[in-house]
Amino acid sequence: MSEIKALTFDVFGTVVDWRSGVAREAEAALAPKGPALDWGAFADRWRALYQPAMEQVRTGARPFTILDVLHRENLVVLLNELGIVGLSDAEIDALNFAWHRLDPWPDVVDGMARLRRRFTLASLSNGNVALMVDMARRAGLAWDVIFGAEVARAYKPQPEAYDSAARMLALDPAECLMVAAHPADLAAAASRGFRTAYVHRPLEYGSGREPKRPTAGTFDYQVESFRELAEVLGC
Amino acid sequence: MSEIKALTFDVFGTVVDWRSGVAREAEAALAPKGPALDWGAFADRWRALYQPAMEQVRTGARPFTILDVLHRENLVVLLNELGIVGLSDAEIDALNFAWHRLDPWPDVVDGMARLRRRFTLASLSNGNVALMVDMARRAGLAWDVIFGAEVARAYKPQPEAYDSAARMLALDPAECLMVAAHPADLAAAASRGFRTAYVHRPLEYGSGREPKRPTAGTFDYQVESFRELAEVLGC
Repeated sequence: MSEIKALTFDVFGTVVDWRSGVAREAEAALAPKGPALDWGAFADRWRALYQPAMEQVRTGARPFTILDVLHRENLVVLLNELGIVGLSDAEIDALNFAWHRLDPWPDVVDGMARLRRRFTLASLSNGNVALMVDMARRAGLAWDVIFGAEVARAYKPQPEAYDSAARMLALDPAECLMVAAHPADLAAAASRGFRTAYVHRPLEYGSGREPKRPTAGTFDYQVESFRELAEVLGC
Repeated sequence: MSEIKALTFDVFGTVVDWRSGVAREAEAALAPKGPALDWGAFADRWRALYQPAMEQVRTGARPFTILDVLHRENLVVLLNELGIVGLSDAEIDALNFAWHRLDPWPDVVDGMARLRRRFTLASLSNGNVALMVDMARRAGLAWDVIFGAEVARAYKPQPEAYDSAARMLALDPAECLMVAAHPADLAAAASRGFRTAYVHRPLEYGSGREPKRPTAGTFDYQVESFRELAEVLGC
């Protein structure tokens, strides 16, 4: 079995709490405009438009388009759905960048610091480079390297997203450990030869909506936090 | 005048001392094999093969090829020139990675820490991602983002190298400050709309071979160290 040399991380949901962050930012931006909404549901609806938008790119129906642009288009759809009118372009841009201002789960910064002593840490997200850079600077995420989706010009779970990361790291895929809270992302990484670590994030979709843990043995590692991952990997 | 938001750095010569590092590594690898050589001259000769190899890619005579591969081909040429025979492939690979193990100039780590408080710091080197990651981890270079040459699939001074960095940072080129010890790199960046900072590195080519400083006013900033750059930029 080859030695693990790099950890590649899914980000939205695995590293940062997108739902609380987007809900907080949407409330701050829109509550003064009048509507009283369930801001968690607002975040859920925005997030629900994410996969269909990327799918247009994956299928080739539209050329590669970065996530900041897809998020903004989806936000305009959502505002129209909710009948929220009268925001300026600059106000829409500012709210769109809610995705740049998400907080890490409480175990992340410490866990990454421990993991980084021994492993190269790479983001492997569908987010674009500028989004990942802004988020990392604000949240104190210590990446060795950011693989924005526009670097591979592919959206996970497309094989090229994983393949290009291993290639640029000059590693065999089996030397890369994909870390994610999402079984589909891990399964796709495994199909490209990556090793896999499932991290359970009970609050990703809000309280009372805890995801089901995978059956034991589905992935190479299964942990409750980045701190536990560091322990399991001997950091 | 737009505000500077990111600093993009040339690396070989500007951030790290390639000549001393390569000389040190070559001596360690080859002196036990017999030849008594001027190891600084060995580094110079290896470096002299760098631009012609990249030029093959720039002109389209060969498809994009990462620097680790070009460096290795050039090393084989150089070993043949010098009549050094009998190295295994693994020994050649190890020596080739001398470029991953270069030391920063003494002002670099402190200067970058100061600059990073206020600006996004990006490598903008002709080196490939794995080379930049290895170097940064060993030398303690605190990049926010690494733009390996294979991300742009272009070698400086090709316009796409600069253009793609600004685009991925989601910045106007005038919000990016190119930092380099090499006037040609700065001039190419300026032609793409970047602002420019010349850093004088008197020892890049060895002692007694100090480069001539550009005429005052050629670039937006002209400094003697990253610490001075941090002061000039108010960090």
